[in-house]
Amino acid sequence: MAYLNENYLKLQAGYLFPEIARRVRDFCEKNPDAAKRLIRCGIGDVTEPLPRAAIDAMKRAAEELGHRETFRGYGPEQGYEFLRSTIAKHDFRDRKMDIADDEIFVSDGSKCDCGHILDILGDQNKIAITDPVYPAYVDTNVMAGHTGVAKENGGYEGLVYLRCTAENNFVPEPPNEHVDLVYLCFPNNPTGAVATRDQLKNWVAYAREHDAILLFDAAYEAYIQDDPHLNPLPEVEADRSAPAGQNLSPRERRTRSASEGIIPHSIFEIDGARECAIEFRSFSKIGGFTGVRCGFTVMPKTLLARTKSGKKLPLHPLWHRRWSTKSNSVSYPVQRAAEALYSPEGREQTRALIDHYMGNAKILSDACAKIGMQVFGGVNAPYIWVKTPKGLTSWEMFDRMLRELNVVITPGSGFGAQGEGYIRISAFNSRENAEEVARRLQVFR
Amino acid sequence: MAYLNENYLKLQAGYLFPEIARRVRDFCEKNPDAAKRLIRCGIGDVTEPLPRAAIDAMKRAAEELGHRETFRGYGPEQGYEFLRSTIAKHDFRDRKMDIADDEIFVSDGSKCDCGHILDILGDQNKIAITDPVYPAYVDTNVMAGHTGVAKENGGYEGLVYLRCTAENNFVPEPPNEHVDLVYLCFPNNPTGAVATRDQLKNWVAYAREHDAILLFDAAYEAYIQDDPHLNPLPEVEADRSAPAGQNLSPRERRTRSASEGIIPHSIFEIDGARECAIEFRSFSKIGGFTGVRCGFTVMPKTLLARTKSGKKLPLHPLWHRRWSTKSNSVSYPVQRAAEALYSPEGREQTRALIDHYMGNAKILSDACAKIGMQVFGGVNAPYIWVKTPKGLTSWEMFDRMLRELNVVITPGSGFGAQGEGYIRISAFNSRENAEEVARRLQVFR
Repeated sequence: MAYLNENYLKLQAGYLFPEIARRVRDFCEKNPDAAKRLIRCGIGDVTEPLPRAAIDAMKRAAEELGHRETFRGYGPEQGYEFLRSTIAKHDFRDRKMDIADDEIFVSDGSKCDCGHILDILGDQNKIAITDPVYPAYVDTNVMAGHTGVAKENGGYEGLVYLRCTAENNFVPEPPNEHVDLVYLCFPNNPTGAVATRDQLKNWVAYAREHDAILLFDAAYEAYIQDDPHLNPLPEVEADRSAPAGQNLSPRERRTRSASEGIIPHSIFEIDGARECAIEFRSFSKIGGFTGVRCGFTVMPKTLLARTKSGKKLPLHPLWHRRWSTKSNSVSYPVQRAAEALYSPEGREQTRALIDHYMGNAKILSDACAKIGMQVFGGVNAPYIWVKTPKGLTSWEMFDRMLRELNVVITPGSGFGAQGEGYIRISAFNSRENAEEVARRLQVFR
Repeated sequence: MAYLNENYLKLQAGYLFPEIARRVRDFCEKNPDAAKRLIRCGIGDVTEPLPRAAIDAMKRAAEELGHRETFRGYGPEQGYEFLRSTIAKHDFRDRKMDIADDEIFVSDGSKCDCGHILDILGDQNKIAITDPVYPAYVDTNVMAGHTGVAKENGGYEGLVYLRCTAENNFVPEPPNEHVDLVYLCFPNNPTGAVATRDQLKNWVAYAREHDAILLFDAAYEAYIQDDPHLNPLPEVEADRSAPAGQNLSPRERRTRSASEGIIPHSIFEIDGARECAIEFRSFSKIGGFTGVRCGFTVMPKTLLARTKSGKKLPLHPLWHRRWSTKSNSVSYPVQRAAEALYSPEGREQTRALIDHYMGNAKILSDACAKIGMQVFGGVNAPYIWVKTPKGLTSWEMFDRMLRELNVVITPGSGFGAQGEGYIRISAFNSRENAEEVARRLQVFR
């Protein structure tokens, strides 16, 4: 009889978001009136319309497919040149990072890429992840057989967990032991923390010393406010709990050039990263593409990995082959829509989207702070990470907010053992809803 | 140092289509005049515009995303209900096959699915593939470590090859030995062969006896002409080399109901297949979606596979979990475009597309037959499989056709050792080009 992949059986059944959905459904069934005023700040899904530039580009591209002269069939499996070169230029070379067009691999999203990357890596690697963490990093490794069984606290045997706590501002130091792969995500989901240039330099130094690879998820990089490329910033209140660099005023931040900003947008802003890092990017949270699906991976040609016998080979040809064999890239109209985000109008429109969500983040952060809750993140990220009051567990806080405020948030413990005692509030919402949540929070006792 | 996946190093460097591209490029550089009259019948990519129904649906859906009231973010990871139910109804339940909506998993193409399916299967399976074969089945297994090294003839150690020759009408019998997984593709790429109901019954019987799983690729099912659901058919000349059932006239064919047709469109037309088969479908060759990217997998809930300890478990929850964890499904406008192919206009337009390509197939088949070449396929498939004359090898014939006729075809040996001595001619072209190729063939000696 055919064998199944038994590693799937190690996965924890109670995946976070289905469990949230179940509790919300139960509550709404029993409380139809409260259900009507329910506001969701749980799952990190965007709410605002797609930028007009992207819609128009997608419609134009769809129309092109309707005419023989402009019809396109299979595109290059690694993405169209027009998109790869636009990305490499705007996101990297214009910001003084040395990334070639063919080091950009277009995909249908960074969640997908985070899983697919394991296709080209060996099963022997020692893997480190942060705690709390975006669950997809862990689950794809469980599925690939890179872990043992689940532990009591929800973690898995065989992984190295890097604790992210208020003490280290939710940015872990490199471990004392050797690991081969490290998942890092900055700006962070779920904590909203960002890593400073110095912190990332430490990580690159560690990776180079240990010949390790950093899998750097920068899906939220556009939310970093420390960027002179941006329009003038609204005055964002400094987060007292954030690392020193984040306490600069927006004016001070703007005086620095992108390549010298305190908070790097890309791991490739750090010297030496081309030899030890792969970066994942997404248009989901920049351009409202959660349902449109487009992202990309930056795979430098100078990144090597080893065979069992110790031979060092570049990963770029393997990644190229992976896409040639297992994919035909992303829908042509979607690639045109992504390209349009880089046009002058597209940039203005995405900027407005991000400003909108970051405005929500400020409203929600302030509201939490006002009632005495300890607030992290939300300054350079669309997620606010809040310490639960009075020693409530994450799920107790979830249930109370659902019952008393009719607001859905995400329990921090769903992201790992170190997330216990925290909740994540997402700033992806309408302004009206963000303000209403802020009002309701004021009666929380 | 981080380990790479060494299985990738077993892959043969000279992948078929890049090698074709290289030879064509060389030829065109040296012969700029001939290059101008080059006609490509090589790669199986569609050439005709997308059906209007699909374009309009895609544009409408893109516009929906531009308004807050109709904006959609993350969709269900397994595909939108509107598409899953449309597929299950039209392609299966209306044709008397018992397939539930949630047994349909929407994807970005069947090539992708053929690779992804290995995610949920064990590494211990004994795998059978046909020879010749669509290369992606083999290469994804090489990458997953399910084979040994490449052999002299291009095959891989550890796989069971099922020979498809003129003697068995390119439809192999089940093997005498035990295997766990069998890749079958009908209508076949590259040979254009179809399997009759009785032949597929044999395969289902084998699979049930051996507790094996049939991985059934039906990407070309819409090209089967044996179907009373279709508009009246043009008179297609029967292929003398085809199995007995294919020699029925179109009129005779139309008197049979789909569920009794000689050539099944789906493995699920065969009793017992729900317990032993997974089916891959694609909109690429039906609706011209090669660049739009959409397909689906049918995963019956009644299909079991085993753990090492012998426990039997359904694969459906694993496949569901695979999509939840590694993907966020296909772009919303693309799913709407796929749905539109099932509307009355969409069906009419896709039918016209298929009739167009099958008209080309007849023109090309007749032209080959007229100069005495032995022709297979092309009756229920858009591929014509032609024996090379005078003992030419596949690549010799490729070079001669390129040089003398300025026509690009695919050498059969690129699909496996048994493809040696054959070429594949694709019917995906304009009528003008098909007619011109037919004319040029008449001077081939």
